[in-house]
Amino acid sequence: MKTKMQDEVVYGLEDVCINTTKLTQVDGIKGRLYYLGYPIEDIIKNNYSFEEVAYLFLHGRFPRAKQLKEFKDELSSERELDIRLKAILILTPQKGNLMALLQGMIAQLAMYDPEIADRSTEAKRRKALRIIARMPTAVTFFHRVRSNLDPVAPKHELSHAGNMLYMLTGKTPAKAEEDVFEKALILHMDHECNASTFASRIVASTEADIYSSVIAAIGALSGPLHGGANERVLRMLREVRHQYGDDPSKYIEDCIKDKKKIMGFGHRVYKTTDPRATILRKLAKKLIKTEEQLKELKFAENFADTVLKKLQESGKTTIYPNVDFFSGVVYEMLNLPLDFFTPTFAIARVVGWIAHYFEQTSDNRIYRPRLKYIGPKLR
Amino acid sequence: MKTKMQDEVVYGLEDVCINTTKLTQVDGIKGRLYYLGYPIEDIIKNNYSFEEVAYLFLHGRFPRAKQLKEFKDELSSERELDIRLKAILILTPQKGNLMALLQGMIAQLAMYDPEIADRSTEAKRRKALRIIARMPTAVTFFHRVRSNLDPVAPKHELSHAGNMLYMLTGKTPAKAEEDVFEKALILHMDHECNASTFASRIVASTEADIYSSVIAAIGALSGPLHGGANERVLRMLREVRHQYGDDPSKYIEDCIKDKKKIMGFGHRVYKTTDPRATILRKLAKKLIKTEEQLKELKFAENFADTVLKKLQESGKTTIYPNVDFFSGVVYEMLNLPLDFFTPTFAIARVVGWIAHYFEQTSDNRIYRPRLKYIGPKLR
Repeated sequence: MKTKMQDEVVYGLEDVCINTTKLTQVDGIKGRLYYLGYPIEDIIKNNYSFEEVAYLFLHGRFPRAKQLKEFKDELSSERELDIRLKAILILTPQKGNLMALLQGMIAQLAMYDPEIADRSTEAKRRKALRIIARMPTAVTFFHRVRSNLDPVAPKHELSHAGNMLYMLTGKTPAKAEEDVFEKALILHMDHECNASTFASRIVASTEADIYSSVIAAIGALSGPLHGGANERVLRMLREVRHQYGDDPSKYIEDCIKDKKKIMGFGHRVYKTTDPRATILRKLAKKLIKTEEQLKELKFAENFADTVLKKLQESGKTTIYPNVDFFSGVVYEMLNLPLDFFTPTFAIARVVGWIAHYFEQTSDNRIYRPRLKYIGPKLR
Repeated sequence: MKTKMQDEVVYGLEDVCINTTKLTQVDGIKGRLYYLGYPIEDIIKNNYSFEEVAYLFLHGRFPRAKQLKEFKDELSSERELDIRLKAILILTPQKGNLMALLQGMIAQLAMYDPEIADRSTEAKRRKALRIIARMPTAVTFFHRVRSNLDPVAPKHELSHAGNMLYMLTGKTPAKAEEDVFEKALILHMDHECNASTFASRIVASTEADIYSSVIAAIGALSGPLHGGANERVLRMLREVRHQYGDDPSKYIEDCIKDKKKIMGFGHRVYKTTDPRATILRKLAKKLIKTEEQLKELKFAENFADTVLKKLQESGKTTIYPNVDFFSGVVYEMLNLPLDFFTPTFAIARVVGWIAHYFEQTSDNRIYRPRLKYIGPKLR
């Protein structure tokens, strides 16, 4: 086996198992997703909160009432930023990219953390909560500053999801908005071993600290082939609607004919519907408050259905809308700024990265693959 | 093959080829290292400069005189930091970790880069030079501030290596020091696909920008199992010498008996001597200026030789000193602060990370391996 593998190059590591996991199971054939054995549909249907599902990932089980209260209190008490970090955010160029902002901020958090060198599980867990709690504060603070608005301090009694919307707008969000946003975060919390989680695991395998692991994952997520997709879906939908009005058929036909990638469709693992997309599509309906939002959603749904129909008509392999397609639509309906889409993905997925960090370091072997040399011979 | 691999878990991806490369070849059996076909011994013997070898990695060939002059000029003109970045460095906690500092600084550089969204090869190359040029400035500036010393502005006419020592101490380094330091940087410039380069490639594969790729690699390098080793070698040598005087035999015997890891020995790929260690051992002699330095070096050499001897006597597998063992010794003789050892590794290796970034993105497939699920059944 080993000799065979050394000769062979496994591009993209497709279908290579790099480790075992007890966290998330993706069944790409049946289109199913399970968090620690719980079907994602059940988690959403039973109205679990962000904090409950985060606890599930960090502790392997849902919390009891008392545990949940403690966890929520601890998480929410870690939201505020050091005043010098705020000064740094104010000095940071306002036109800069939010994913770079998150990378830089988390590196700064590492510089400030008095427990940085403490390798105990308890200290690692506290560092994890600091990261999860402060990410929404950092991006919303920066956004308020760049928008010439007063920053909004976190409100302890609000949920993780509700508080993020509150810090963004200065208003306590409506129940439906908070609920859909929270569920969107939960749907993005983990997805086995995509590039960002893989990056988190590789950094973890060197026994680097949890901050470095999360920073690397954010870098991977920032790539247009990974987390950047939901933002690009929205840009595409806006542009197509602007150019073609209510009927996207012509655009889609041209894409299929010219083999041009349609944003938000297809997935390396799912060969059928992406269960997250199915759920988000339903959730989006709860957000309709205006005629324009209704139209927007109808357009997006029609776009998704037309892609499927046209692909079937043309005899091409059917590819399905993925999570990015409908998360883009939902975030737009929630009035998130366009460049918040990918950071919001990060703010949800960080729970998964951290769970994988713990899993990787609990039984570790450093990743050290090979590259097959095909360069110049001895010079 | 694929079905077989899906069932099997390849821990640490040992011996798995994840791609091809035209950059660096490591022959672990013969103990040889080649940069683009050139044996590392020849590169050192022929006194190539940091800039020349960096050019080799970025352009695939050594520069002609005119190309070298232009490259040096461009690189050295990119050394200075924006005044607001300096303000951020001053606001950053002085006790913070330098690897986190580098991650945060490079994220900030991304925020400031007007070409951040430009995906042309030329723009990517300019961004690469900005990163390579500014890393030494950031760490030395921060070090001067935390030491209550005035920062030293970069000096255009000095080489990359010489200028870093100059910004650290405020004095133009002696020829021997600059020369040995430069060669140490060159020896660390690339090493095929260890965890940091792998992290750089994974982030690159999402089409994230070059900054994110380098930041992830720095995170991986910060881990004690990877780049942190040279610093730990020095701590070990200091402690053993403090406890046992000039004879490390007792310490080494105990380590072998108790199966305790000896820092700076053994390598996943090299099954024989690490050619970089051999070269650094020789180079270290050039740095002897005081009786104490002579003693230090003798102690380190004696330590290395005793490990080999004791392992052979005990019938255990022989493991050899790796690059970290003698780079630790060399950096100590150059009076680098102990927490500069790993950042200095990063300042050299960044050239390799960037070369791999270019190679990965030139013919890309996103890395998306699998994790084998062994968690709870359906709940």
